[in-house]
Amino acid sequence: MAHTRGVKLAPLRWLDEPAGPAVELLDQTRLPAAEVTVTCADVPALVDAIGRLVVRGAPLLGLAGAYGVALAAWRGDDVPAAARALGEARPTAVNLAWGARLALAAWQQAGRGADGAAAALAEAERIAAEDAAASAAMAEHGLRLVPAGARVLTHCNTGALVSAGEGTAFAVIMAAHRAGRLAMLWVDETRPLLQGARLTAWEARRAGLPHTVLADSAAAALLASGQVDVVLTGADRIAADGSVANKVGTYGLAVLARHHQVPFVVVAPTSTIDPATPAGPGIPVEQRPAAEVTALAGQPVAPDGTQAWNPAFDVTPPALVTALVTERGIAQPVTTGTLRVLGA
Amino acid sequence: MAHTRGVKLAPLRWLDEPAGPAVELLDQTRLPAAEVTVTCADVPALVDAIGRLVVRGAPLLGLAGAYGVALAAWRGDDVPAAARALGEARPTAVNLAWGARLALAAWQQAGRGADGAAAALAEAERIAAEDAAASAAMAEHGLRLVPAGARVLTHCNTGALVSAGEGTAFAVIMAAHRAGRLAMLWVDETRPLLQGARLTAWEARRAGLPHTVLADSAAAALLASGQVDVVLTGADRIAADGSVANKVGTYGLAVLARHHQVPFVVVAPTSTIDPATPAGPGIPVEQRPAAEVTALAGQPVAPDGTQAWNPAFDVTPPALVTALVTERGIAQPVTTGTLRVLGA
Repeated sequence: MAHTRGVKLAPLRWLDEPAGPAVELLDQTRLPAAEVTVTCADVPALVDAIGRLVVRGAPLLGLAGAYGVALAAWRGDDVPAAARALGEARPTAVNLAWGARLALAAWQQAGRGADGAAAALAEAERIAAEDAAASAAMAEHGLRLVPAGARVLTHCNTGALVSAGEGTAFAVIMAAHRAGRLAMLWVDETRPLLQGARLTAWEARRAGLPHTVLADSAAAALLASGQVDVVLTGADRIAADGSVANKVGTYGLAVLARHHQVPFVVVAPTSTIDPATPAGPGIPVEQRPAAEVTALAGQPVAPDGTQAWNPAFDVTPPALVTALVTERGIAQPVTTGTLRVLGA
Repeated sequence: MAHTRGVKLAPLRWLDEPAGPAVELLDQTRLPAAEVTVTCADVPALVDAIGRLVVRGAPLLGLAGAYGVALAAWRGDDVPAAARALGEARPTAVNLAWGARLALAAWQQAGRGADGAAAALAEAERIAAEDAAASAAMAEHGLRLVPAGARVLTHCNTGALVSAGEGTAFAVIMAAHRAGRLAMLWVDETRPLLQGARLTAWEARRAGLPHTVLADSAAAALLASGQVDVVLTGADRIAADGSVANKVGTYGLAVLARHHQVPFVVVAPTSTIDPATPAGPGIPVEQRPAAEVTALAGQPVAPDGTQAWNPAFDVTPPALVTALVTERGIAQPVTTGTLRVLGA
């Protein structure tokens, strides 16, 4: 994808090496301290990188799934098995399996072999282009929900690092900035892996946005102080009833936003909506290792052997979501009916 | 205080050195990695240690204020100036100025000089003994609010590290454990300084409590999952109307507890109640350095120069507090009237 947009961040690139193709990932676990890439020459390497969060974020995981299938096809590996392994690399983000499935279908329809490989890659490129277009459309729709002089609170990372475009919630924030409406971007640090402090602050700085980081637990006091006009987050999976699985902490923000009568807006492409999951309780929530909480950058922050509860995601019921912004328009309120209108 | 209770943790000890007295502090910034002490031979050293959070927690700060005044008196320093400096070392915890004021009054009434110094030290020892007794009384009263098989969620650190006894909320938890009622202690890690992960987990381990640490932002999902029966926290200052200033994140927990119909109980000695502050907005909230959020254990976790909003405390309105447990009994509901009944 990156060879078409040289100036943008390249969180994922398809490399046409003489020795064979590969997928190059910007290692998001190393940011902001170091900008280094990880090259995956086969699907097991890519699955490992997905598990370690070298690559992350719902839209980008969709691309990783599709490019991974293309990689398997070019290598002559067992492509359906590769699609399955990619789809199961992480349980919550539905885009991963979605991207893998689309590329697999393209490979099958093109008769497998070399034609199949070219078709799978073309499908991955198409998904990337569509993602960039969806990002721009979400930004345009979402801007309608951002008032002048807006102080926006966001959680986790939803920008160019997770997208072939400017991302989801972050794309709306960028549009607000360009429209002269962004007074402040409040960035939850987003424990345990600090995607807010490490990645969103890094993107905000690159883009010249006014921004301030805070501990996740300070968001309640910030909301009470009247310094937040809208909360904007992404989503990792949206059930058919509008329940939103997203980075852990999102649900608490939604409750707090409601308590303080601040709009809570989710921004996600329709590919994030999973009609096969009827409601929130059906969304599997990935439990991550305790060490993500009990240590930081290799330094222990709790006594040796301390047990931790570490869900990567939580689920926000649709009644707490003021609006869902997609590339096809806005669902408000968020219900099975309004999601259906979007064609999801 | 510690020479009277050798087996307990000694967060603060009065040293009778041949060269002159000193106050020895267990350095809470180094736990759990290292158990090291800091010896303060004069009040400026003690004020510096208070500012750096070597010593922290509402009841213990009261002791630090009192022992600090005794130290100034033994040294023949300007005792009223020392009491003032100690009282202003941190703005939110009211116990600090309270302890300093009591020891200062004892010094003045005893005619200053050597008698005054002895009286100030005796007053500090009395406050320590009273704090230990208050801790035991709070534990007894608070136990009435803990059901059998309780899963308790707590925030920050409120145990023996902040008290001459077993602390405040943690004393209730210890009582519940001894009564066979504690099924699980959920410990918020408590960013930015991780007093939950570093200190409460350390105390829980020493005491053999079943405990699990979680990221602060995971508490909402934990509450939604039905795995919390009661939230127990301490307080740094309680206004006359019952508004509770405590470690940042407490207010968000109170909102979330209410949303999930889980009791939210504050445990604090009546010395924490400040009749001079009529209501929540009158409580000064200490802003701490950005580096506490943007770096951890010396490691940067955000891009260089990132701005952070870092209030050390937040304020919970009394309507969200199910009950306030003090050494004199329980205020429930928490109102100006019920606080007055406690003689605060």
